[in-house]
Amino acid sequence: MEIATGQHEALALARRGMRLDVLFTRPERRNAMSAALNREMRALFAALADDRSVRLVVLRGAGGWFCSGGDMRERDQSLHDQAADPRVAARERNRLGGELFRAVNHAPQVVVAVVEGAAMGGGFGLACAADITLARPDAQFAMPEASIGVAPAQIAPYVVRRLGLSQARRLALTAARIDGREAASLGLAHHLCEDDAAIEARLAEIERAVRRCGPGALAGTKRVLNAASLLDDAAMIEFAAEVFADCVTTEEGIEGTRSFLEKRRPAWAGEA
Amino acid sequence: MEIATGQHEALALARRGMRLDVLFTRPERRNAMSAALNREMRALFAALADDRSVRLVVLRGAGGWFCSGGDMRERDQSLHDQAADPRVAARERNRLGGELFRAVNHAPQVVVAVVEGAAMGGGFGLACAADITLARPDAQFAMPEASIGVAPAQIAPYVVRRLGLSQARRLALTAARIDGREAASLGLAHHLCEDDAAIEARLAEIERAVRRCGPGALAGTKRVLNAASLLDDAAMIEFAAEVFADCVTTEEGIEGTRSFLEKRRPAWAGEA
Amino acid sequence: MEIATGQHEALALARRGMRLDVLFTRPERRNAMSAALNREMRALFAALADDRSVRLVVLRGAGGWFCSGGDMRERDQSLHDQAADPRVAARERNRLGGELFRAVNHAPQVVVAVVEGAAMGGGFGLACAADITLARPDAQFAMPEASIGVAPAQIAPYVVRRLGLSQARRLALTAARIDGREAASLGLAHHLCEDDAAIEARLAEIERAVRRCGPGALAGTKRVLNAASLLDDAAMIEFAAEVFADCVTTEEGIEGTRSFLEKRRPAWAGEA
Repeated sequence: MEIATGQHEALALARRGMRLDVLFTRPERRNAMSAALNREMRALFAALADDRSVRLVVLRGAGGWFCSGGDMRERDQSLHDQAADPRVAARERNRLGGELFRAVNHAPQVVVAVVEGAAMGGGFGLACAADITLARPDAQFAMPEASIGVAPAQIAPYVVRRLGLSQARRLALTAARIDGREAASLGLAHHLCEDDAAIEARLAEIERAVRRCGPGALAGTKRVLNAASLLDDAAMIEFAAEVFADCVTTEEGIEGTRSFLEKRRPAWAGEA
Repeated sequence: MEIATGQHEALALARRGMRLDVLFTRPERRNAMSAALNREMRALFAALADDRSVRLVVLRGAGGWFCSGGDMRERDQSLHDQAADPRVAARERNRLGGELFRAVNHAPQVVVAVVEGAAMGGGFGLACAADITLARPDAQFAMPEASIGVAPAQIAPYVVRRLGLSQARRLALTAARIDGREAASLGLAHHLCEDDAAIEARLAEIERAVRRCGPGALAGTKRVLNAASLLDDAAMIEFAAEVFADCVTTEEGIEGTRSFLEKRRPAWAGEA
Repeated sequence: MEIATGQHEALALARRGMRLDVLFTRPERRNAMSAALNREMRALFAALADDRSVRLVVLRGAGGWFCSGGDMRERDQSLHDQAADPRVAARERNRLGGELFRAVNHAPQVVVAVVEGAAMGGGFGLACAADITLARPDAQFAMPEASIGVAPAQIAPYVVRRLGLSQARRLALTAARIDGREAASLGLAHHLCEDDAAIEARLAEIERAVRRCGPGALAGTKRVLNAASLLDDAAMIEFAAEVFADCVTTEEGIEGTRSFLEKRRPAWAGEA
């Protein structure tokens, strides 16, 4: 499936070589995770699942906001929609959120989240499902769910994998709001970026690193690392051997071994 | 089941609103985890499992000791009890320890451990099974089991979830004793408190945060976070959607959404 | 099986009491993980699996190199071996790597890795599968696999358990090279050692700590901690109770309880 760049309803896409920039474009709603944003993001990551020409995806919010989480007006409306069973509607809406986080987590690309302003609820979840998270020191991270009578449900697996169960419980059970600096100290953010120039510099550095890596190898690496906490030791050895054998015997893997022994850059890495 | 406040054999309970203070009251035995303490704690947490009027449980030891772990005199006696098979008795006694840690870990309340003096063995396990752990800088944490010929067995899951497998192995395999400061740097303790006033201030802050959170939402949050490392992705999405739909469509969840949109405190949060 | 000390093809073994030193002896190949090294290491850890006279195993590389990972010349040759199906050969070779990491991870001894120079790929995996990792500040750690067209496959479980999934993904997907200092800040290394004297001092301290621990208790401790992330709560309680009952009712466990109550060193700990 072709990835359609340009402006959509809730996001805009820009492509440059192996890099795809995804901008959330409803800053007037603090880029809340509306039904439209969910639908367009799921369509995008479904297309990316089979795409090896994109190796790097950068998620960022317009207007200095990353994503403020669930769209509370939409939620309220669906609870009062006379046509539907409110519980069934809430369940389905929540499930679609879970499908999105799963798709981001399993994307064969390197996914970077650039957190400015707020990353709340579902925005917090996106920051955790990404591979690399950049944050400004004054960014705000929180799981406010318990303070509005619900649970951080679909984001839970990604929060636990990012922070560990202990910090995840502490933050969720106190609905704590932390800034970028504390997020970095907890491993929620990987890199603190003081300003826009620092963000651009860090993104350029990540782009250079990702360009040195083979597209199939990146996909295989994510598959095998994501599987590592799910399989027992014996099953993991077999699975890992399959992934490795797949990688090393393809054209990409053969080029990788050759270029290493010949002390040159592999074909996929382009010019230095 | 009603929670009986006041002095019991090995602990004392005090209630104030949504908060329950649990004090271990055998400082002359360094609050060792005796059969009596285990029995009374299990009865307490069984009662708490269905109680939503308590939202915060604070565990603390009298006399400046948190809990020094297994009661070695009791253990020795049971190994020499002529009436019972020593292996069967040891196994059952150990199993009951495991039931206690599991009950603390899964309590629908926010559980805080205040570690002063020593948290050894089972005390170390309680500190890990709690949601939030406070420690004085001079507190002592250790898993001394291997140095007395046994293994940190029932506490293992909670230690691994708190510290990660790597630090858990390092500390257990060297029977290392660490102070509160190192405990904080490892994430074993969440907050360092220099003195009693700092402990009280931190507890008050946690109490304010927990009061802002819905009782059902706290219970749902712990369920979903605890499940996150056990279920595969597909099962987790279904489970999380059930928990979320349960929360959002109850009176509490409806009040949560309303109070958010109306920019007021929810009913459960009381006065500011 | 007797452990044969002295020089083998790819490693050398030296025994002193309960400690076994394992030296990788191909510094001219930067101690790459050749078929010979894999075979000799697997044979060693198979022998260690039933050996309780060794309690501490120290892995170190000769010539100031820990281990540079897969032997790329051997890999290239096996891909061009006319007699074998390259994919089958690659798969089997990779599987044997996985068997080695598993054996190191599950060894009933305390395994220490001393990282000088480089720990790349499989060397990175050994550093993660060990119980305690020492590193010089100028050591280099990397998973360069994706930059040569493959995935860090068999090391994945040990990397994820050591670093968490999040840092594991970040480092693997950027093929990042980090030094000992950053490795320590990520928990990849437990102790930074400025020079050789610091390494020897730290090893002596670890040796003293391990000598205080019972050999059966060390084995039981690793079994139960490794199981903690695999079993569900109910199964874990039963398993832990079995391990504990096994430990506490053996001669070693009885001596442990007695020596504690008699305030003396247990028999296995020797002189102070």
